Amino acid sequence: MEPWLGSEFGNPSSLYEEGRRAKAAIDEARETLAGRLGCLFGEIVFTSSGTEAANLAILGAALAHVDGPRRRVLFGAAEHHCVLHCEPLLARLGFRVELVPVDRQARTDLDALERSMGPDVLLGSFMHANNEWGTLQDVEAIGSILQRHGALYLLDAVQTLGSSEFGPRLDTLPVDLIAVSAHKVGGPKGVGALAVRSGIPIRPLIVGGGQEREVRGGTENVAAIIGFAAAVKAIREDDDSFKRAARDRFLGGVGSGFVPSADYTESDTLAGHAHGRFPGLNAESILIVLDRLGVSASSGAACSSGSLEPSHVALSCGWSPAEAAEALRFTFGHQTTLEEAIWAAERVLRAAEQVASARTIA
Amino acid sequence: MEPWLGSEFGNPSSLYEEGRRAKAAIDEARETLAGRLGCLFGEIVFTSSGTEAANLAILGAALAHVDGPRRRVLFGAAEHHCVLHCEPLLARLGFRVELVPVDRQARTDLDALERSMGPDVLLGSFMHANNEWGTLQDVEAIGSILQRHGALYLLDAVQTLGSSEFGPRLDTLPVDLIAVSAHKVGGPKGVGALAVRSGIPIRPLIVGGGQEREVRGGTENVAAIIGFAAAVKAIREDDDSFKRAARDRFLGGVGSGFVPSADYTESDTLAGHAHGRFPGLNAESILIVLDRLGVSASSGAACSSGSLEPSHVALSCGWSPAEAAEALRFTFGHQTTLEEAIWAAERVLRAAEQVASARTIA
Repeated sequence: MEPWLGSEFGNPSSLYEEGRRAKAAIDEARETLAGRLGCLFGEIVFTSSGTEAANLAILGAALAHVDGPRRRVLFGAAEHHCVLHCEPLLARLGFRVELVPVDRQARTDLDALERSMGPDVLLGSFMHANNEWGTLQDVEAIGSILQRHGALYLLDAVQTLGSSEFGPRLDTLPVDLIAVSAHKVGGPKGVGALAVRSGIPIRPLIVGGGQEREVRGGTENVAAIIGFAAAVKAIREDDDSFKRAARDRFLGGVGSGFVPSADYTESDTLAGHAHGRFPGLNAESILIVLDRLGVSASSGAACSSGSLEPSHVALSCGWSPAEAAEALRFTFGHQTTLEEAIWAAERVLRAAEQVASARTIA
Repeated sequence: MEPWLGSEFGNPSSLYEEGRRAKAAIDEARETLAGRLGCLFGEIVFTSSGTEAANLAILGAALAHVDGPRRRVLFGAAEHHCVLHCEPLLARLGFRVELVPVDRQARTDLDALERSMGPDVLLGSFMHANNEWGTLQDVEAIGSILQRHGALYLLDAVQTLGSSEFGPRLDTLPVDLIAVSAHKVGGPKGVGALAVRSGIPIRPLIVGGGQEREVRGGTENVAAIIGFAAAVKAIREDDDSFKRAARDRFLGGVGSGFVPSADYTESDTLAGHAHGRFPGLNAESILIVLDRLGVSASSGAACSSGSLEPSHVALSCGWSPAEAAEALRFTFGHQTTLEEAIWAAERVLRAAEQVASARTIA
């Protein structure tokens, strides 16, 4: 990214030499993204985040079909807020949003989805892997239901882009739109992308110049786009095995007091992900101790950190608000060593014991 | 920016130590922007571009007043496309957009504005300085008209943020919203900001987590925000005098064949800006020669480069499409030396002669 933050300051929309160099660099990055997402060069739209990519998919499709007969939009109940919070604007545009329930593993209830379908459904948004639970959806099954009813399928693949096993692809999965983000795969913050299957009309959400084939206005974030492509290129086939090994070692060391939210030995979970709780122990209290001990973990989505509301994902999985307040999420990168995983597990165990004993005293 | 693209990868919404450090850094940058824009810390919303900032101001205000009695929005006819292109979505939300004409110097016709006003006007958008003409508006006069009718005033100040003389401020100008961009003041691409006067309701355009006080979802672009603040801090009191000296030397050297679009000796023009034309000579042809000679100039907004449409700014200033095809824009930074300005003027003169003689032969 460095030259593009310094000497290479050309605006890719400008016609002079510096501008053309910036344009060529973006085009190369677009090619890289297209390769990763199994789509065509012209099917990639760069955005400022995964959030904006999902917003653009949902609201852009709605704006393109605002006078059409399809008036309903379906969201999985455990989708990210960047999907769920599109509801007010969709309602304003005359679309009705309906939530499709998930099971205790945050997976879409396929029977409920089937029952919700009809010829008036424009789009369904069902994430590839849940960002809190770390469980994968049956994309094939969901896609076949949506396709049968002529509805568009937005796949929020922010969690899986970096997966060497489950990488989201437009050429092999029955989906129409894929939203991804750079900073979840080691790239910079401030850039995301939306893959839009050719022929699917999308209206811009951010309007200005004709950038990104008139689908997304605003001067292109050249450096971040280059960084996004570099991060994508750095994804290795064996990344997931390293993540899984670290995660498994962690789960082995964290003790039986920790109750995982899903069976993370199964292959349909994110390799570097573990979610669960210590029953009776407040997650926030554990996280404060962990932070002092040098372990960075979370209770759910970073976007909702500090919020007093219980996680909507936990609630949609059937947890009580009290259980939701105990939720802990641990994630592991491919560079996390087994020693670090053991080290972290020891500290989590210690933090849980500390919170439990403080609770007993109180 | 460097540490925030490397070792400092914390998500500012996360509660652990790395996240808190990122949050503190953003807060410091927000303080810097607030100082520059004469507003409070909490009145700054970071966005991904000036385009998004203007979109958020217009559409965010419309969404907040979608059920209110004010159903009209006024735009200057020479506003940037990031303002004008909000029209379809505004119409969809039930607002009528009306354009207020400008004079030949791209300045708002105040009588026409007065005639357009009424108690049903929600917001007017009138840029601080026109991005093609480089002429400044009478913000005081526009603001007093809008204020008298209780309408909001969005000031697109992308062109003036870097001006040491005309820096846009919420505390001294009669405006309610100010949109700015980092890359126009030497900062990185991919970040802008909107100053929103306290108490003015704005609904988010990009929805997701509760970032930016629930007005702009998406993980914050920490590095770019830090870079934005650094660029703002680097603005010096005498920047404009250096820009003006270079611009004046350029205009002195470019010959009488070049007809400036405004009187750039007047103080109500951007210091480093010159717009005009060589009558009879196609701008695109001149720019191609200039590019070969090492001079990077444009025919108007970069966002519209490559577009076959004549500039809407030129047309709104009363130019014919043929005249608009001759428009050239030259801009000078505070670091542009007088020697460089003379060097550029010589090349512009040579390019014009070359295009003129090719035309004669043809």
